[in-house]
Amino acid sequence: MNLIEPSKVSRITSIGGGPIGGGWTAHFLARGYDVISYLHDENEEDSFRDIIDTAWISLEELGLADGASRNRLTITTDLAEAVKDTHFIQESAPEILELKQALYEQLAELVPDNVVISSSTSGLTMTEIQQRCSASERTVVGHPFNPPYLLPLVEIVGGKKSSPEAVQWADAFYEIAGKAPLVMNKEIPGFVATRLQEALWREALHMVANGEATAEQIDTALINGPAPRMAMFGQCMAFHIACGEGGMATNLDQFGPALKLPWTRLEAPELTKELRDRMVDGCNEIAGSRHFTDLAAERDRGIVAVLKGTRAARTTTA
Amino acid sequence: MNLIEPSKVSRITSIGGGPIGGGWTAHFLARGYDVISYLHDENEEDSFRDIIDTAWISLEELGLADGASRNRLTITTDLAEAVKDTHFIQESAPEILELKQALYEQLAELVPDNVVISSSTSGLTMTEIQQRCSASERTVVGHPFNPPYLLPLVEIVGGKKSSPEAVQWADAFYEIAGKAPLVMNKEIPGFVATRLQEALWREALHMVANGEATAEQIDTALINGPAPRMAMFGQCMAFHIACGEGGMATNLDQFGPALKLPWTRLEAPELTKELRDRMVDGCNEIAGSRHFTDLAAERDRGIVAVLKGTRAARTTTA
Repeated sequence: MNLIEPSKVSRITSIGGGPIGGGWTAHFLARGYDVISYLHDENEEDSFRDIIDTAWISLEELGLADGASRNRLTITTDLAEAVKDTHFIQESAPEILELKQALYEQLAELVPDNVVISSSTSGLTMTEIQQRCSASERTVVGHPFNPPYLLPLVEIVGGKKSSPEAVQWADAFYEIAGKAPLVMNKEIPGFVATRLQEALWREALHMVANGEATAEQIDTALINGPAPRMAMFGQCMAFHIACGEGGMATNLDQFGPALKLPWTRLEAPELTKELRDRMVDGCNEIAGSRHFTDLAAERDRGIVAVLKGTRAARTTTA
Repeated sequence: MNLIEPSKVSRITSIGGGPIGGGWTAHFLARGYDVISYLHDENEEDSFRDIIDTAWISLEELGLADGASRNRLTITTDLAEAVKDTHFIQESAPEILELKQALYEQLAELVPDNVVISSSTSGLTMTEIQQRCSASERTVVGHPFNPPYLLPLVEIVGGKKSSPEAVQWADAFYEIAGKAPLVMNKEIPGFVATRLQEALWREALHMVANGEATAEQIDTALINGPAPRMAMFGQCMAFHIACGEGGMATNLDQFGPALKLPWTRLEAPELTKELRDRMVDGCNEIAGSRHFTDLAAERDRGIVAVLKGTRAARTTTA
């Protein structure tokens, strides 16, 4: 493979007229790329432009790249036209395996051979999607989080026939393109973020089913409790910082036994020495040379910002 | 019972010299109350004042109530002195059942009989704590989220002998005192927020145990994916808004079957008609008359604020 340099990408193809395809288009335009968007049906154009115009309000507020403009968008219903001079393809077609397999088979014939094709799929694997694609080594999953024009996460993973080089390329490219890429080593259902979110979500459904909480209580609890902290530092570091000098080691050594308490319906993993050390080392790496008091001060500044920001955002329409 | 009016409370006793007792003290001072803090040992005073001084930086940034001052704090190691003229007690003693039972037995003798005693306990139930207390009808759990001077959530629940009046009183009082109270009908381990957080946490530990993700990847995924959205709207409403006009009904009717997919190790609840309707009605109640496009715009403003705020908070020490 002789892929284009990630930093040389200036022209991107976005496939799909729904909220994900529209969200990606808005994001790439805001980062100063030329974007050509492929829609399956020309009647989708109005709603597609609405998605972009809505996203643009937030993207302007976050800050546009130099030269970024919605005028740099081209819309077409001709797939060959959409991909012929492209440097990168973000595919957000409907989540139907047969449809995606046919699309990737076709793309292999049309796309320049130095271009990576990345799928927004959330429910399929690239191993399944790439089965009939003759350019499978250049296909990866680049899964965004909704809304894709705002949330930075992109989970990247290859299928069985994907080249590790294409995965690395996607990692480098998304970073340059202003995203927060996360490369996974294995194809697992739900990637990382959705698995975590779904664990919480199922617990929420259990509580509602048992009459222990309402939807409103669940959201009140999250908004005023774990979420602002999690938005600032995630969950591993939230526990690491909360335990002071001892950090994650104190958390697991002291509260490890509480994992067996009936906090949730999710069966607890065995807290082996290996798991313990992996978590402790992981947190220490994130902390680096920062002392926990600095981290706690940083957490507090972040929570204040989250509280003030969400309060202001709510007040505007209250 | 003839409890003091929640709005007439001007003098609060905080019991406990650790981060939770110190955090509560700082919060109540910032809201303009006189606070008398009971420490078990006078040697705790320096570290206790450090906790308050650290908290004060954030509390000033969030905005102090009129007349709020750290000079309105009295510290004592005399329990009788600490509670004799008080209007409310927030107890944050160590999480040892025997110790709390003895403390509540003693408090019943010392505390004015129009005063509610609220425990910060996270791991014990009030039914256990109040067993030897002759004023058990006035005891409740008022469980904060760490750090208690910043995160607004207080989960309130009574024990078997607690009066519903005391629970209602605590709900009204915490609201006036600038907190986000959540009254639970049942004593369940972990209340609402910790149960949700622990479900996510166990899934995270499973992923680390299986080599599917590292601590850093988990935090990266949360910070850049679900957490900013959750900080703004919780999780029920995040799904409700993401599904457009159809809201939670579309979410459950369309993605309900996906609950059975191996997204997480948490066994999924049966998605009965009743559970489905409860979730749908709950979200519609929260939304009220707001159209989903307004909610989505509000969400986006919130996420922008969270992203800008956490970015600035990080940059300061980066």
